[in-house]
Amino acid sequence: MVNIDEWTITKAVLDAQRGCTDPRLKTLLDSLVTHLHDFAREVRLSESEWRAGIQFLTEVGRFTDSKRQEFILLSDTLGLSTLVTAQNNCKPEGFTESTVFGPFFVKDAPWYDNGEDIANGAHGEPCFVNGTVKDNEGEPISDAHIAVWQSDKDGFYDVQRPELSRLQARGNLRSLVDGRFYFKSIVAAPNPIPNDGPVGRMLSAAGRHPWRPAHLHFMITAPGYEPLITHIFRDKGPYLDSDAVFGVRSSLIADWERHDAGSALANGTPSSIPYYTLRYDFKLFRARPLARAQTP
Amino acid sequence: MVNIDEWTITKAVLDAQRGCTDPRLKTLLDSLVTHLHDFAREVRLSESEWRAGIQFLTEVGRFTDSKRQEFILLSDTLGLSTLVTAQNNCKPEGFTESTVFGPFFVKDAPWYDNGEDIANGAHGEPCFVNGTVKDNEGEPISDAHIAVWQSDKDGFYDVQRPELSRLQARGNLRSLVDGRFYFKSIVAAPNPIPNDGPVGRMLSAAGRHPWRPAHLHFMITAPGYEPLITHIFRDKGPYLDSDAVFGVRSSLIADWERHDAGSALANGTPSSIPYYTLRYDFKLFRARPLARAQTP
Repeated sequence: MVNIDEWTITKAVLDAQRGCTDPRLKTLLDSLVTHLHDFAREVRLSESEWRAGIQFLTEVGRFTDSKRQEFILLSDTLGLSTLVTAQNNCKPEGFTESTVFGPFFVKDAPWYDNGEDIANGAHGEPCFVNGTVKDNEGEPISDAHIAVWQSDKDGFYDVQRPELSRLQARGNLRSLVDGRFYFKSIVAAPNPIPNDGPVGRMLSAAGRHPWRPAHLHFMITAPGYEPLITHIFRDKGPYLDSDAVFGVRSSLIADWERHDAGSALANGTPSSIPYYTLRYDFKLFRARPLARAQTP
Repeated sequence: MVNIDEWTITKAVLDAQRGCTDPRLKTLLDSLVTHLHDFAREVRLSESEWRAGIQFLTEVGRFTDSKRQEFILLSDTLGLSTLVTAQNNCKPEGFTESTVFGPFFVKDAPWYDNGEDIANGAHGEPCFVNGTVKDNEGEPISDAHIAVWQSDKDGFYDVQRPELSRLQARGNLRSLVDGRFYFKSIVAAPNPIPNDGPVGRMLSAAGRHPWRPAHLHFMITAPGYEPLITHIFRDKGPYLDSDAVFGVRSSLIADWERHDAGSALANGTPSSIPYYTLRYDFKLFRARPLARAQTP
């Protein structure tokens, strides 16, 4: 292991990893090292480019904290998140498709009862969301945990507004006995991914725009079913065809229906301002049998 | 760009990067994305493995600060640093070889005159280091900037000892008119790369040890010459054949000669304790002509 050059280094690292007792980890590390080295050789990575790469990752680390995940943003914008989501969520037709998780999920968001206003003061036109959670056979799933999060009318998430002292436009609900859920919120707007950090600089240098089409995040979990992480996208809005994180699926595009001022609300009284309604029915996939889940 | 799957995502990202106006950056990004995706497809990366990877990089970021560079450590231990060093420092026989930079260089270390003690209080057996800096034709290079850094007898660098209020066993010197340099220090010991962080956990999980053979870091720069970043390794010590960062080159192994107590020092007086001497002559490579340096 002396006098290693740019060609013999790959075998030297794989040899050093021969003692790895976790076969799956060994597969991952061996493949990662091989592809990383192939990349560096293919482009003949220079020392100053290597230093720029180290500096870039250091900056990504500096921008990451409990409210912002710049590494997820990097994975999203490089298409890795969509790749991993796609190859792990192949489900039969009819089940709700998954898409990327994104960098803005927050643990410990408030819980709400069905019908409550999860906007919690966030600005935007009112939107009444309702839908159902059902299973393989179309039977309702009660007590499913539904986590929702979204941007406000300016395209910002609450965690991007340092002046806020509370979480807005996000929350947790449970589906009712008949699988239904409903809440009030605001209409999400197209939003740029946070582009004041290293990932934003990368997009700009690569000639890419940072915009995402308007969407509402859902994470729905229920015992015995595969967790569903997805968005509902707003039909006819901009960027549906050039999402900065490659997450749009046509089955997830829905109509945010607009109602003029004066239209009747659910309780029959006329609304003094325009509002929107959105309905989406989710179909969860029953968790695969253990024998299959255990294959690596 | 809708309904992208794990196979079409690569083309979608490359298409998004078509607007990149910097051709070299486009080459780097296109190759990086392709190899990253190939890796994720080859191992069929799962969502929990993806999350573990994000968490790992987040930890690497958390461990990186002005005194510790965990991303460089990651690059070193994955063999990327040696690969990049090797493919960028191919020099004719006889010129001093380069090796990895490592994570422990500190800007603004103290300056010393030749002959001074750069240990600055670090513990270890005394070692008198001397050598020369010469050029392509063997002519001395005067006024070369020589930066030195090393571990103490316990294998720790000063920046790994939070109780220290000053920099130890590192410094800057200039070569004399005849190309000579000389200083007093201590004998470096084999040292584990810092293994209390995520990279240490990775090595352990991969069945690898964290040790490096004893070495002394040099960075030597002089106008008109290629910068030289290298180590001098201590002959006959452990780990020369299993360096955790793959950096050993046989031309960089030198004899740290031991002298018993009572042996005469350079000034003729007998030393009351044993000491070591090390001599190494460096040969710098004249910077390549611009025409070559400009090719990407």
